[in-house]
Amino acid sequence: MTSGATPAPAGRRRGRPRRAEAAGGGPATRDRILAAARAEFAERGYDAASIRGIARVAEVDQALVHHYFGTKEQVFGAAVAAAAAPATDNLSLRPDVPPEQLGQWLTGVFFRVWENPVTRAPILAIARSAITNDTAAGIFRTFIAGQLVGRITERLDAPDARLRAELAAAQLVGVMMLRYILRVEPLASADAEELVARLVPAVQHHLTGPPPG
Amino acid sequence: MTSGATPAPAGRRRGRPRRAEAAGGGPATRDRILAAARAEFAERGYDAASIRGIARVAEVDQALVHHYFGTKEQVFGAAVAAAAAPATDNLSLRPDVPPEQLGQWLTGVFFRVWENPVTRAPILAIARSAITNDTAAGIFRTFIAGQLVGRITERLDAPDARLRAELAAAQLVGVMMLRYILRVEPLASADAEELVARLVPAVQHHLTGPPPG
Repeated sequence: MTSGATPAPAGRRRGRPRRAEAAGGGPATRDRILAAARAEFAERGYDAASIRGIARVAEVDQALVHHYFGTKEQVFGAAVAAAAAPATDNLSLRPDVPPEQLGQWLTGVFFRVWENPVTRAPILAIARSAITNDTAAGIFRTFIAGQLVGRITERLDAPDARLRAELAAAQLVGVMMLRYILRVEPLASADAEELVARLVPAVQHHLTGPPPG
Repeated sequence: MTSGATPAPAGRRRGRPRRAEAAGGGPATRDRILAAARAEFAERGYDAASIRGIARVAEVDQALVHHYFGTKEQVFGAAVAAAAAPATDNLSLRPDVPPEQLGQWLTGVFFRVWENPVTRAPILAIARSAITNDTAAGIFRTFIAGQLVGRITERLDAPDARLRAELAAAQLVGVMMLRYILRVEPLASADAEELVARLVPAVQHHLTGPPPG
């Protein structure tokens, strides 16, 4: 990841419709900056990515990136949220899932996101940044705590709801590591439906199983 | 991780008792090289670490590093094995654990290694390298598959033993991620004994629970 740290020389920039963008802006421009940010963080990692590089890929002025998203940390936070949007959209669309089916539902959402290469690639890249950079880890932690664990926690009626949600998330994060990052066999090639069937009892145990001791 | 990529200039080297080492060698020298390798991989990551840097820290000639360990990949593999030695020593010391207690035993070994800062630090550093570098990931994968999962697998009398062992390992790897790397609360500060009690049923489910469907 270190080899991509040097910004491309100015001569390699493609033409940027700077005036039109600065004047226009709007949702399309914001989305293009966000897509560029995801690509930059994915390709270079958190440390080497820059507002300047994101602006170049999006073909807008750097000031517009700051205008829409603020600091590099804030751009990264927005990129994490955008990358995880399919998962969190799923989470927010199903307020009617009863606690005893949360394991099935959470495990299903996880595999729908991770089995689809389009949604997997950006999250994988951003997860890697979070593992090697403390700032990125903080942003990723805030996202996991607030979005994923938070939404599960509020559906559980238990004083230890948050710890339960985190242990359930840990089961799925570990599968992410061994199946998609380290690609340990036979887990990496196992049928996703079989894995859901094997994982649900463990995930559900954490969410609603008897307390320890 | 990019800032440490440049090797220190030769002028910064401390005196190296090159002749004594080349002549002497032996277990003490090998151990010192291994400790230097662990420190180098931990500090710089896999990409930036070099045989030259390891030799400098160990105060031996580069040729001696090659003599004992071979290539950079092989040094890394040896460093992974050394970092995980407390875990694998525990694994190899207990051939009498019955299958229905393997969950308790594996979870206990995991927390003994990870709750001790002396054993945690090198594994953490090496795990981070494995997440961001494909070569390091391959070495780490071989280690997990061969040492950890392999030893569990051979104690389970089931055709799907390896997949079971990997799903159990995934639960613990996920805890490693959320508790020690991302430090998500309350998991990061929870009492280790309480976590063992909460995790054992999930780990044991994977190892000896009913097959899916």
